[in-house]
Amino acid sequence: MENNTLTATAPATHVILNPQQLLAHWQGHRDLTRRLIEKYPADKLFTYSVGGMRPLSVLAMEVLGIASAGVHGFATDGDWKTMDELLQHTGLTKPTTKEELLKLWDVVTEQINEYWPKIAAQDFQRQMKAFGQYDGTVISLLLYFIDNEIHHRGQAYVYLRTLDIEPPFFWDRH
Amino acid sequence: MENNTLTATAPATHVILNPQQLLAHWQGHRDLTRRLIEKYPADKLFTYSVGGMRPLSVLAMEVLGIASAGVHGFATDGDWKTMDELLQHTGLTKPTTKEELLKLWDVVTEQINEYWPKIAAQDFQRQMKAFGQYDGTVISLLLYFIDNEIHHRGQAYVYLRTLDIEPPFFWDRH
Repeated sequence: MENNTLTATAPATHVILNPQQLLAHWQGHRDLTRRLIEKYPADKLFTYSVGGMRPLSVLAMEVLGIASAGVHGFATDGDWKTMDELLQHTGLTKPTTKEELLKLWDVVTEQINEYWPKIAAQDFQRQMKAFGQYDGTVISLLLYFIDNEIHHRGQAYVYLRTLDIEPPFFWDRH
Repeated sequence: MENNTLTATAPATHVILNPQQLLAHWQGHRDLTRRLIEKYPADKLFTYSVGGMRPLSVLAMEVLGIASAGVHGFATDGDWKTMDELLQHTGLTKPTTKEELLKLWDVVTEQINEYWPKIAAQDFQRQMKAFGQYDGTVISLLLYFIDNEIHHRGQAYVYLRTLDIEPPFFWDRH
C-alpha cells in the first residue's frame, strides 16, 4: 500500500488520456445524441418538452454552437467565431426540419474532426477564455462541452420516454 | 498550420489531464448531484419520476454503487467487492430517507478520496474488466462512471422542473 501511494502521488508524467482518445470519446457521445435526434418524432423535435424546459432542437443547437465555435477557437488560438459565422456557407445554421438539423450535426462532426488535430497536446492545459467569456483550461472547457451535451441529452431521454419511445441505449457508442 | 498539425499528431507525451484533475472534476460533479438531491422533496425522492423512469433515489443508488465498487476495484487490482460489502459496517447501504441517502453519499465521497491515490497514473490506460463484467481501460471506465452520473442527473433535472423546483445551476461546481 505504501508503494502504491508513492507511485500515484509522484509527479504525473504518465498520459492517462490522449487527444485522440478524447476525440473518439466525444464523437461517440455525439453519435449517441445524433441517434436520439433520429428517433425523435419530426413533429415534436422543435416544439415538445417536459416541465417547461427547452425542446430538443433548442438543446441540440446549443450543443452544436458550443462544439463548433469552441473547437474552432481552441484550434486558432482564440479566434472566437460563432457557428453561424463559421458555417454560414452551408445554409444549414438555422434548421427548421429534423433533416436539416441532422445535416448540420454531420457538418459539425466533420468540422470537429478537421480542427481537432490543430489543438496541440501541450495546449490542453493552457488557460483560455472560451468564446471570449469563460475562463478555464482547454481540457476543462472541452470536458464542460461534453458534459453539457450529456446533461441535455439526459433530459431529452425523459422527453422521449413520455412520448412512449425507447431511447437508444446510453452505453451504445459507435 | 503544417507545424501545428505535426505537433498535434506527434506521439502524445504531454499530459492533457492528470489524475488529481480528474478526481476534482468527478467530485465537482458529485457535489452538484448531492445538491440536486438536497433540493429534492423528501417525500418524492423514493417515489416520484416522469415517463415511467426510475425515481432519483434509485438512480442515485446506481451511481453510488458504481463509484464505490469501481474505485475500490481499480485501486485493488480488481477486487470487485460491491458497495454493500464495502460499506456494510456503516449501516447506510439501504437508505430509506433523504438524510440516510445524503449520509451514504458523503461516505462514498470519502471512500473515493481515500482509494483514488492508490490508482497509479500508469494504470489509467490499463485494460480491466470492471465488476468482473465490463471491458475497458481504467480511464474509459471512469469516464463512463462520470458520464452515467451526468446522464441520470440530467433526467432528475426534468423531474424537479415538473415539480416546479429550480435545480442547481449545471455550471456551478464546488
